[in-house]
Amino acid sequence: MKLTTIRYDGATMAGRIDGDEIVLLDHADVGDLLRVGADPSRGGRTIPLAGANFAPLITAPDKIVCVGVNYADHIAEMGRQPPTAPTYFSKFRRSLIGADDPIALPPVDISTHVDWEVELCIVIGRPVRHATPAEALAAIAGYTIFNDVSVRDWQRRTSQFLAGKSFEGTTPVGPWMVTTDELGDGSGLAISSSVDGVIKQSSNTRELEFDVVDIVVDLSKITTLDPGDIIATGTPGGVGAARTPPEWLTDGRVVSCTIEGIGTLENVCRL
Amino acid sequence: MKLTTIRYDGATMAGRIDGDEIVLLDHADVGDLLRVGADPSRGGRTIPLAGANFAPLITAPDKIVCVGVNYADHIAEMGRQPPTAPTYFSKFRRSLIGADDPIALPPVDISTHVDWEVELCIVIGRPVRHATPAEALAAIAGYTIFNDVSVRDWQRRTSQFLAGKSFEGTTPVGPWMVTTDELGDGSGLAISSSVDGVIKQSSNTRELEFDVVDIVVDLSKITTLDPGDIIATGTPGGVGAARTPPEWLTDGRVVSCTIEGIGTLENVCRL
Repeated sequence: MKLTTIRYDGATMAGRIDGDEIVLLDHADVGDLLRVGADPSRGGRTIPLAGANFAPLITAPDKIVCVGVNYADHIAEMGRQPPTAPTYFSKFRRSLIGADDPIALPPVDISTHVDWEVELCIVIGRPVRHATPAEALAAIAGYTIFNDVSVRDWQRRTSQFLAGKSFEGTTPVGPWMVTTDELGDGSGLAISSSVDGVIKQSSNTRELEFDVVDIVVDLSKITTLDPGDIIATGTPGGVGAARTPPEWLTDGRVVSCTIEGIGTLENVCRL
Repeated sequence: MKLTTIRYDGATMAGRIDGDEIVLLDHADVGDLLRVGADPSRGGRTIPLAGANFAPLITAPDKIVCVGVNYADHIAEMGRQPPTAPTYFSKFRRSLIGADDPIALPPVDISTHVDWEVELCIVIGRPVRHATPAEALAAIAGYTIFNDVSVRDWQRRTSQFLAGKSFEGTTPVGPWMVTTDELGDGSGLAISSSVDGVIKQSSNTRELEFDVVDIVVDLSKITTLDPGDIIATGTPGGVGAARTPPEWLTDGRVVSCTIEGIGTLENVCRL
């Protein structure tokens, strides 16, 4: 099942994708739907999928967790050591944009070092704390696509990544979530990105150092994960910062992120 | 003016402290009061201040930003270099507790390395983006006390602090906010902490490497700051991890954090 959040009638609304239509579900977004535990399979009014205006899949997650250095080839290209534990940082709600929204580049006097990072993103469906592996998997509602756009000079100006990961309006998430009954533990999915049609990243989620169950088990030792929390699981090799010479996103460039079994998230960059 | 958030009648409510009473303001918390721009000086029902059950001052901030390595003596004791830019990391809503709540120590098989960090905490009062210094100061509603309790082994297991800073129920914030008409730019305030009555940290906010205006100006280059956002500005020297031998918070120990012009935040630790 594919669930989405669209902008509709001056607000946002959750929906279920049914062929070439969206069945409207009376919740403000997929996060709200998950928090109240509503049945997403019920009927309702429909609108055409074509021309839908996607909002961020979860408009106001309680937590946005990102996992860094989680694919071997990206660890090597960034000059880091293989991890002994998952590396977590976060973003803020204002970083998130919808699936067709432009990526808001910072003014050029603030940074021109903007980079792409395609990531498989977990959506939590029920509260979970001190999870066993089975409980961790059961707490996952589904998966979406996350482009962890990174302002590299701000990411690297101190030891902590947050500054470079939190620029407003930079992080597309969507266009929809595919539920775990179709994607299981999210392993074995081809994952890739391209810029202006040229492939930049190409890997498979089986290459994750810490898989989705590892991550949820570990995070749930720290805090309760809540419905609507999103966890971006890390990016494979091929980012712009690691290229010779480095390659950045500039006004008009189009970044496309594709994950097998989910779909494609494509956004133009705008100054 | 002192504004607070209390647990009352099965929910939370904002209030204004008036002598030995709290004037109840009909908003769910100080964050809600700031977001709607309500007048906090108006009248209302009162309850006694004594025995009030304090909630986290902002129950669900859109952003919790923490500044690391921001006092020279703490930078030296942690073996870090003086910063050229503010170091930011974050916490999650579930980390926050009220002014009299116990600090929830993690189970001992997860960590026993729990440490204290008294911090001056900014509360944002109005949206601000790309702020000048004057706009930054005008965007600050007031200041509160923040104990950035840190699980040091989890903070240090990877390059990113988030894991060790986000343990559920570990971070007292309150008991109230003092508005900027009384505290101005928050400089020149004595700041200290004690554990079981023994002073551990003692400094002054004039020792901040990046002051509150610097921080708001810089953060607002990244994203819009919103009413109810809280920004903990860093801790002075004297934390437990830097002592010989290291000293940790254990069941029953009492941490007290005091900032001149605001008050005291005192919490017992509980396993």
